[in-house]
Amino acid sequence: MGLNAKQMGHCTVDFEKNGKQIGFFNLPLSVHDDAWGVVRVPLAQIKNGEGPTVILEGGNHGDEYEGPIALGELIRDLDPGLVSGRLIFIPAINQPAVVAARRTSPIDDLNMNRTFPGSTVGTTTQQIAAFVNDVLFPMGDAFLDLHSGGSSLDIIPSSVIEPVDDPVKHAQNIAAVTAFDAPMIVVIDNRGDPRTATASAARAGLTVVGTEMAGGGTVSLDAVRICRRGVRNVLVHLGALPPTFGAPLEHEPELYDIPGAGAYVIAPDDGVFEPFHRNGEKVSAGQPAGRIHFLADPGRAPVELAYGIDGIVYARRQPGRVRPGNCCLVVAAPYRSRLT
Amino acid sequence: MGLNAKQMGHCTVDFEKNGKQIGFFNLPLSVHDDAWGVVRVPLAQIKNGEGPTVILEGGNHGDEYEGPIALGELIRDLDPGLVSGRLIFIPAINQPAVVAARRTSPIDDLNMNRTFPGSTVGTTTQQIAAFVNDVLFPMGDAFLDLHSGGSSLDIIPSSVIEPVDDPVKHAQNIAAVTAFDAPMIVVIDNRGDPRTATASAARAGLTVVGTEMAGGGTVSLDAVRICRRGVRNVLVHLGALPPTFGAPLEHEPELYDIPGAGAYVIAPDDGVFEPFHRNGEKVSAGQPAGRIHFLADPGRAPVELAYGIDGIVYARRQPGRVRPGNCCLVVAAPYRSRLT
Amino acid sequence: MGLNAKQMGHCTVDFEKNGKQIGFFNLPLSVHDDAWGVVRVPLAQIKNGEGPTVILEGGNHGDEYEGPIALGELIRDLDPGLVSGRLIFIPAINQPAVVAARRTSPIDDLNMNRTFPGSTVGTTTQQIAAFVNDVLFPMGDAFLDLHSGGSSLDIIPSSVIEPVDDPVKHAQNIAAVTAFDAPMIVVIDNRGDPRTATASAARAGLTVVGTEMAGGGTVSLDAVRICRRGVRNVLVHLGALPPTFGAPLEHEPELYDIPGAGAYVIAPDDGVFEPFHRNGEKVSAGQPAGRIHFLADPGRAPVELAYGIDGIVYARRQPGRVRPGNCCLVVAAPYRSRLT
Amino acid sequence: MGLNAKQMGHCTVDFEKNGKQIGFFNLPLSVHDDAWGVVRVPLAQIKNGEGPTVILEGGNHGDEYEGPIALGELIRDLDPGLVSGRLIFIPAINQPAVVAARRTSPIDDLNMNRTFPGSTVGTTTQQIAAFVNDVLFPMGDAFLDLHSGGSSLDIIPSSVIEPVDDPVKHAQNIAAVTAFDAPMIVVIDNRGDPRTATASAARAGLTVVGTEMAGGGTVSLDAVRICRRGVRNVLVHLGALPPTFGAPLEHEPELYDIPGAGAYVIAPDDGVFEPFHRNGEKVSAGQPAGRIHFLADPGRAPVELAYGIDGIVYARRQPGRVRPGNCCLVVAAPYRSRLT
Amino acid sequence: MGLNAKQMGHCTVDFEKNGKQIGFFNLPLSVHDDAWGVVRVPLAQIKNGEGPTVILEGGNHGDEYEGPIALGELIRDLDPGLVSGRLIFIPAINQPAVVAARRTSPIDDLNMNRTFPGSTVGTTTQQIAAFVNDVLFPMGDAFLDLHSGGSSLDIIPSSVIEPVDDPVKHAQNIAAVTAFDAPMIVVIDNRGDPRTATASAARAGLTVVGTEMAGGGTVSLDAVRICRRGVRNVLVHLGALPPTFGAPLEHEPELYDIPGAGAYVIAPDDGVFEPFHRNGEKVSAGQPAGRIHFLADPGRAPVELAYGIDGIVYARRQPGRVRPGNCCLVVAAPYRSRLT
Amino acid sequence: MGLNAKQMGHCTVDFEKNGKQIGFFNLPLSVHDDAWGVVRVPLAQIKNGEGPTVILEGGNHGDEYEGPIALGELIRDLDPGLVSGRLIFIPAINQPAVVAARRTSPIDDLNMNRTFPGSTVGTTTQQIAAFVNDVLFPMGDAFLDLHSGGSSLDIIPSSVIEPVDDPVKHAQNIAAVTAFDAPMIVVIDNRGDPRTATASAARAGLTVVGTEMAGGGTVSLDAVRICRRGVRNVLVHLGALPPTFGAPLEHEPELYDIPGAGAYVIAPDDGVFEPFHRNGEKVSAGQPAGRIHFLADPGRAPVELAYGIDGIVYARRQPGRVRPGNCCLVVAAPYRSRLT
Repeated sequence: MGLNAKQMGHCTVDFEKNGKQIGFFNLPLSVHDDAWGVVRVPLAQIKNGEGPTVILEGGNHGDEYEGPIALGELIRDLDPGLVSGRLIFIPAINQPAVVAARRTSPIDDLNMNRTFPGSTVGTTTQQIAAFVNDVLFPMGDAFLDLHSGGSSLDIIPSSVIEPVDDPVKHAQNIAAVTAFDAPMIVVIDNRGDPRTATASAARAGLTVVGTEMAGGGTVSLDAVRICRRGVRNVLVHLGALPPTFGAPLEHEPELYDIPGAGAYVIAPDDGVFEPFHRNGEKVSAGQPAGRIHFLADPGRAPVELAYGIDGIVYARRQPGRVRPGNCCLVVAAPYRSRLT
Repeated sequence: MGLNAKQMGHCTVDFEKNGKQIGFFNLPLSVHDDAWGVVRVPLAQIKNGEGPTVILEGGNHGDEYEGPIALGELIRDLDPGLVSGRLIFIPAINQPAVVAARRTSPIDDLNMNRTFPGSTVGTTTQQIAAFVNDVLFPMGDAFLDLHSGGSSLDIIPSSVIEPVDDPVKHAQNIAAVTAFDAPMIVVIDNRGDPRTATASAARAGLTVVGTEMAGGGTVSLDAVRICRRGVRNVLVHLGALPPTFGAPLEHEPELYDIPGAGAYVIAPDDGVFEPFHRNGEKVSAGQPAGRIHFLADPGRAPVELAYGIDGIVYARRQPGRVRPGNCCLVVAAPYRSRLT
Repeated sequence: MGLNAKQMGHCTVDFEKNGKQIGFFNLPLSVHDDAWGVVRVPLAQIKNGEGPTVILEGGNHGDEYEGPIALGELIRDLDPGLVSGRLIFIPAINQPAVVAARRTSPIDDLNMNRTFPGSTVGTTTQQIAAFVNDVLFPMGDAFLDLHSGGSSLDIIPSSVIEPVDDPVKHAQNIAAVTAFDAPMIVVIDNRGDPRTATASAARAGLTVVGTEMAGGGTVSLDAVRICRRGVRNVLVHLGALPPTFGAPLEHEPELYDIPGAGAYVIAPDDGVFEPFHRNGEKVSAGQPAGRIHFLADPGRAPVELAYGIDGIVYARRQPGRVRPGNCCLVVAAPYRSRLT
Repeated sequence: MGLNAKQMGHCTVDFEKNGKQIGFFNLPLSVHDDAWGVVRVPLAQIKNGEGPTVILEGGNHGDEYEGPIALGELIRDLDPGLVSGRLIFIPAINQPAVVAARRTSPIDDLNMNRTFPGSTVGTTTQQIAAFVNDVLFPMGDAFLDLHSGGSSLDIIPSSVIEPVDDPVKHAQNIAAVTAFDAPMIVVIDNRGDPRTATASAARAGLTVVGTEMAGGGTVSLDAVRICRRGVRNVLVHLGALPPTFGAPLEHEPELYDIPGAGAYVIAPDDGVFEPFHRNGEKVSAGQPAGRIHFLADPGRAPVELAYGIDGIVYARRQPGRVRPGNCCLVVAAPYRSRLT
Repeated sequence: MGLNAKQMGHCTVDFEKNGKQIGFFNLPLSVHDDAWGVVRVPLAQIKNGEGPTVILEGGNHGDEYEGPIALGELIRDLDPGLVSGRLIFIPAINQPAVVAARRTSPIDDLNMNRTFPGSTVGTTTQQIAAFVNDVLFPMGDAFLDLHSGGSSLDIIPSSVIEPVDDPVKHAQNIAAVTAFDAPMIVVIDNRGDPRTATASAARAGLTVVGTEMAGGGTVSLDAVRICRRGVRNVLVHLGALPPTFGAPLEHEPELYDIPGAGAYVIAPDDGVFEPFHRNGEKVSAGQPAGRIHFLADPGRAPVELAYGIDGIVYARRQPGRVRPGNCCLVVAAPYRSRLT
Repeated sequence: MGLNAKQMGHCTVDFEKNGKQIGFFNLPLSVHDDAWGVVRVPLAQIKNGEGPTVILEGGNHGDEYEGPIALGELIRDLDPGLVSGRLIFIPAINQPAVVAARRTSPIDDLNMNRTFPGSTVGTTTQQIAAFVNDVLFPMGDAFLDLHSGGSSLDIIPSSVIEPVDDPVKHAQNIAAVTAFDAPMIVVIDNRGDPRTATASAARAGLTVVGTEMAGGGTVSLDAVRICRRGVRNVLVHLGALPPTFGAPLEHEPELYDIPGAGAYVIAPDDGVFEPFHRNGEKVSAGQPAGRIHFLADPGRAPVELAYGIDGIVYARRQPGRVRPGNCCLVVAAPYRSRLT
């Protein structure tokens, strides 16, 4: 708008102060039911001695729980004396979405991960993104962005690489993502969308680690364990926590990626989807992937869908109900790295 | 109301006719967008020779898919010449709920399974219930009511016994339910609610078989296989299909029940629930069952919940988000049968 | 409920008083935004000398305009000295629906014409119906119920006969309906539903005249003229207005009816309906009636529908968008009277 | 329905046990997001020695706060040893409405105070009403029903008499209501509606005390003080608390009532209401009461309203916005008691 | 935003390939119920030999049916061998609106025709507009934008001229629009709004043809015939189809336009509008145009509206219900061309 | 967008004409229910002789009534002959919000006072802001922006100073604001938000006067009197009305401001807020301010809140129900003016 774009929120955490602080970024929001209130985005910091500044974020989508749970435990339980450097936690970055347990914000209906770099004179989600992008990212050396599959997808627990052009930075990211020690590592470029938190952090030069932890809108016992271990392992890898905090690696994962539109099995019809395989099963292009049933019209035969590429089933849709355009299944294929 | 309570819908299936018919029960519904339209409840019949009349119902809740899928396949694929007697299918009894993929009807917001015996001058769900109760049940010898866990629950695939006072009938029901060959058999009395389809069918003297097939709002590969086999096995058991249609039994299940309010782990707070066990694990009264996290308030410690009885975890809530009163977990205990 | 079922509303019109009164039936309604308010159902009376008590009702559905317009004009313009007897007007009986311009009430989502005889301890629509049924009908000799096609249907302007068993009463109704002088006369039994206003008035022994005046959610220039003339003609026929108020008959209509489920062309699919004929065209059983197009899936061929009976097209659906169960077209056939 | 109407909820309070219990009436509710959950209606009991059973209820409407606040304090703070008899607390009887801070329940859209005597096979609000009516009222000697004005009304803090035909009972009620020591006492018959909690309790023979405590959807400092004192005074009057718990009377109130439809100033137009007097001011029939402004049509002159009777302004509408039928003001007049 | 604005969608049609292709433009959309799904905008191409590239668009508003029907028929039925050049079809450009049968998109509530030139990092409607504007328009020689009146308006079937400043281009547009052979030709500048599809296409230098085909939210038998003929005639005129595909002209239309704010009869009140004339009738400034009735307040006289200019009634509002600001009627006047 | 950003609305008021005009700014809005309609923003002008152009605005938030009432009365009642200069009235600037009685617009959900300077190619609220900013502000010498507390806040009636950097302009504003003669004067900078109407008017160089008049969503008798007097006094002060129109000053107010985040008492929990003080009471940092009660969980003790600064209670939340982030109370402190 050409308006003076200063940050309007008030931050109760002092980023220069040592020790542990648990507070809020209070962003004014003037709505019918609360003319002079704020959106309270939780914010915490643990700072001690020398070391990197690591920004740990969860709740980018409000229905992805393992990351926020693991970050909340660290915030409450971590002894500040063990930290080398500074950990900045935003465990529920899209706080209105987290409170609503929805992917997107109930305030402006925006997906935080399609909103970066945000705007100080935009809507609430855009203003939070601008705070993180303009205030936090410049302070950071590394960025952890903890996602799960959310309400609509069940994904193989995996750590995620944000692809960058600089091969040195790419190698650093691969190393950090590998330290997370998830059962699988996947390069995900979000179809080239530049508006994600990780794309924005990468543009700002930070080391970036992403995750996808199960999903289905539920808390997965397995994924929450993987996430707890992974976050600590990455912090050890980055030098922010002592090696004793890390766990021995359990996986020797290959790298995968999602190579374009053919990787997605998309529903062409309105009905109920029955998949033919489980996550992790090997499949090939042309193979039947599942069927759409028309339950209220039993005389109509189901429609069969097929895979578009070879690979393994990386994610499946949780809700049986599908509409045209819904993503039913996603296939991951071995990654042909740009580094080699 | 004291009004003349005749059935107002039009049924395109002739119940006296031999062979296969796929049609609809068309129930008038006069709403803003369609003054003279109908609700089209799918209805099918396969009739041949001598034998019992078996009523097979699915879609009582619109987000429970295995039953309607299995019934749709039978409707389309079964050769009428193989049937002895009459199979009446209502694979999507709460059709508006099935189309919406919601537990309850979007028309009157009613749960079909709290609506029996229905009313011919009531709302749509009540009118459908009255049609089934007043027209179909009097024709029937046995009734299959195929449920799954729905959007909110993930349940161990099981066949379900509707408890009745008459010990002879109870034994017949146990025999039919056992023929379903699910991994588990559970007596469920719906806290004594008399308004369920199975309670109503039992009052009408039919042999009654219920199921709970996984859930989480998804189509389970395992449960759909169990359901396909189970329905055929029960039809064989009842004498409506030849023995060659049955599959050899795979399970030797104990009987369980859900012995009262203590079996339910109920959320006391508003947050995100992390369970400590999987379905099928053995647990005991007083043991920690899970935790409620407060993701937007990371300084607040989680609240721990405990089991109320000994048993095995029979069902768990799918959505991580809980509010006070939500059912987080259900424990089943070995059934102390009234027959012995 | 067994509760004392006295009328709770307050009526500002004194039914025993001569002359013109324009007032309200104020029915208490206690809702969030108005704890001690009322629903104000407009009510008017013009009383003078000896003669019948005629109840004139419009706004039974809130999106049918010709009747309420014609009644409002009579209320404002009619000289009480011309009346013989008593005219009681309820021009917007479902006042909340009329204000919302919806078929059904926004308060309880009920269709007033599926609510009779109502209940004094029910919801708002049921309480209004009970007032009309219990207080007004016992005072009445004749009842005019002025409908149009509403938002979803465009109907040939017609006067409507509520079928009754008593042949004398039936003949009286036919005579009164014929006096309305619409282009067409149709016997409509609402699929036998006993909950309509006219069925209730007929049970109370009143002479009953119904109408269907165009529709499409709009005000039809033709229909509003037919309706103005028709109401006056019926009042002359009943002896409540002097013959000079009547207009010479313009039509010599045959009687039609809607002979059962086959008369309705029902949509089997979700799409956009293109009709092949206009209202009033002659059609025959089996003839193509129209097509459902799938606009967002242009590779899919349209589905063709056919008429179920011989007759003329009496009504067509206004909104192009159809869902399964929607009424696309209605065919009327010559009435085989019970009187002969 | 003719169904076996047993109570389906589970009560964690043992009504026969001495001492203090804070628990819940857990009523099963099977909805899309929670198939096997419950509505948790809070319930508490303090029992000790001999004395009357007094039922104290708040939250009948979910946006009326003084009663629930005062009851919650008693539940937490009262020493059981001071009680003579039994106090049964239902401080948030319409729990779903209280959680939503709405007059009516978000589950079934019902006003609890138009739902008595309820139904065990009805909706949630009806089932709660049936529990209170069928289980609690038979145990009770007296009933306190603590209302405030709610979101739409600001009312002079007052204690309220439910009129009964039996003059002895009426005198007892007046005595108990007078003990509450509110600034004003009003006989309110809810336009004769038999479906209120107090009407139901009176039919069951209990001594009945009602209140109206300010309102406007807010917590009033004055009213919360009046309510705290009043509840204790009534319990002392009934003999359930020792006299030392009572406060000396501050008011010598006249009795008022709301004598029929003329007491209500009802909005005839859609606009913004400006009142001309404050609560408590003396007014007379015919006097201008306020104006409705048409803010978006400044060329249109406001419409003036007038009072219908002589009396004092007892209540005024809080929201400026009015629609036809809304209650703008209520006038109370001195009560002409049936006792004299 | 300054972000890299590349197209994120995937197009299954190869624009360089000869023959007929029916596919989709799949645009990623990440929402609560479908994290990794797409919006599937149907797209088709028929390419053959030499000739112009003509872009044919329908479904710009989702409740305007004649254009999408006519385009779908061409897509399915046209023999590629008859085409000279390339026809690119986007028959449901605002696919979410078409599926919802709403003027505007249910995803972002945007009117596609107020969204051009769009944005690759905007909302779904903006992203589709950017695809059409940035990818398709540069390939095109001519653009057909097929509108109807939609749910709120019934318009005389007409072809529409987008006014442009260049007199040569203007003459070309008039020639192409005249080839459509509608009963009426109207110059419509959308009150100068630059955000329409036709304004954007005109800025890109394409020959532009618009239409308005009846409306009222229905499929008009007349308009669908006019539209089928018109599209073919324009393609013949442009040289993309052989002359044998054209139909002999039926109309010799004058040109009209809508000369400013005075052409619109705007509702000043909240009520039900009764028009005094039909589409096509000649009217003059100051003449009564219709009345607004207050159906729930029969004592209040209707308000009369008047025409602002001389001309013919070009469009009328379909829904009887009006609110202040609603367009009741539109008058078209003979066009005083800039060419002469 | 780079599009040609001309104003698209039509203004029925001629700003150059003398005398009184009451009209509308008609802004096209093309929505599902009204494709070619307008939003009718009321606009009036009274022009006479020489003198300043004063822009008087109300209805910036649609639930703030005193300003629009006072402006409507001036528009209807003021004799043009008494005016020196030009008064331009926009008494319901956010007309859709005023009609809905909501703070924000139901059309685009925007808060008008976070929308300046607006956009001619934006949404409705943005387009209205652009009209006021681009067309009206350049004509103006002074700007009155009349707010009240709205639905969520009850504020001490006060006139409000928009802080500006230029000390001369600041002194002029203080003088004009003081002329309003409210009980209190407060400097409010809206946390530095540049998107308010007053900030925009100040940037345009106008003298600016703001107000806050009670609130609670109601019309306050006191505040409406203060507002009527205040507007006239300011017009006298500005030389637009003769001194006889002014009222003698009643207040000698100190200046206050709201010195940052500490002035706001923000809810940390979800419950019902009970304040401990009334507006106008003196409070100090650390003093208990109120309590949040958990009405549906009576066993849980309330949470106590405290003030953050010394000062007087300037505003309190009206709705008892609070959620985390809601503003419960606001404290004003004596203003340390930049002028001294």
